[in-house]
Amino acid sequence: MEVEKIILGIDPGTMVMGFGLVQQKGKELSIIRMDVIKLNKLANQALKLKMIFEKMLELIDEYKPDELAIEAPFFGKNVQSMLKLGRAQGVAMAAALYRDIPIFEYAPRTIKQTITGNGSASKEQVSKMLQAMLKFGEMPKYFDATDALAAAVCHYLDRGKDVNYSKPKHSRKSASSQWAQFVQQNPDRLSRKP
Amino acid sequence: MEVEKIILGIDPGTMVMGFGLVQQKGKELSIIRMDVIKLNKLANQALKLKMIFEKMLELIDEYKPDELAIEAPFFGKNVQSMLKLGRAQGVAMAAALYRDIPIFEYAPRTIKQTITGNGSASKEQVSKMLQAMLKFGEMPKYFDATDALAAAVCHYLDRGKDVNYSKPKHSRKSASSQWAQFVQQNPDRLSRKP
Repeated sequence: MEVEKIILGIDPGTMVMGFGLVQQKGKELSIIRMDVIKLNKLANQALKLKMIFEKMLELIDEYKPDELAIEAPFFGKNVQSMLKLGRAQGVAMAAALYRDIPIFEYAPRTIKQTITGNGSASKEQVSKMLQAMLKFGEMPKYFDATDALAAAVCHYLDRGKDVNYSKPKHSRKSASSQWAQFVQQNPDRLSRKP
Repeated sequence: MEVEKIILGIDPGTMVMGFGLVQQKGKELSIIRMDVIKLNKLANQALKLKMIFEKMLELIDEYKPDELAIEAPFFGKNVQSMLKLGRAQGVAMAAALYRDIPIFEYAPRTIKQTITGNGSASKEQVSKMLQAMLKFGEMPKYFDATDALAAAVCHYLDRGKDVNYSKPKHSRKSASSQWAQFVQQNPDRLSRKP
């Protein structure tokens, strides 16, 4: 039986939350939607957290993703900003946990490596690779959107590799390959949702 | 009209989450319950976060608190532990936000100062003061429980002073006083729930 699933990738921050939704049908992957939720104009942290939680529930209830992919943050920031970021992530994750959606976390380097074949790739390189592969027209204004999409695509390609949250609902892919390699071998398998 | 409200204080961590519930009736304050939820035996972070979220919803739905009080963490930890702590807090806060319960955050020093009159008081001093005032018999095994209770009591005494989340549903107390001072002046106003 063909695997059919929807993966929601998110990049929750304290100013902007990016999200990207992809659909897998068998071995075909297509983009459903990607966008950002702007939080910077909200007056306080509670309103931001509430917005993240509510938007997450909206996305989940509208698109019914099977799995959530999230980028583990780079630990270069100070403790105060890490706490804020952790709260934003926690709220976003709570929505998924509430709806029983398993969460998968990937290190930034893993995502870059999986998408571009280079763990030190820039955000631009990652987004351009995603654009070429998923054939979306306009590049989004914020990297948060492509970062979120990258987490979802990384999960599709790399599922099971560094899952530290819970087991996938479906069986693992027999072998996960790097995006570039995958694309080279399967130029016809990536499509945009009509 | 007499103010009647329930305050839920929480101290969410990555190993244990403390909580304390107090009820205010007019100027009387009584303890409803305090305890901890143990997370240390759960296999991974997702299970811990899920447990926090579910237990928070259970507490909220059972006791219907009007307000949530939380201790802002001390920023002495490393970035990785702050992220974990932030996620735990974010999940707990999401449950309150989901149920439209306003959140109030207090710095550890403010809580100690408000409860004992000394911003550098030890956890033991805080818990002993709480025990004397709220007349609970047995001291809980974990300071996480009394820490959570302290946040709730601090919010009762200090409401409006350093609220950085949202406005209280009810009007501010005209003047908030330190716990020690309050107790000295009102030895009869603190009672234990029958």
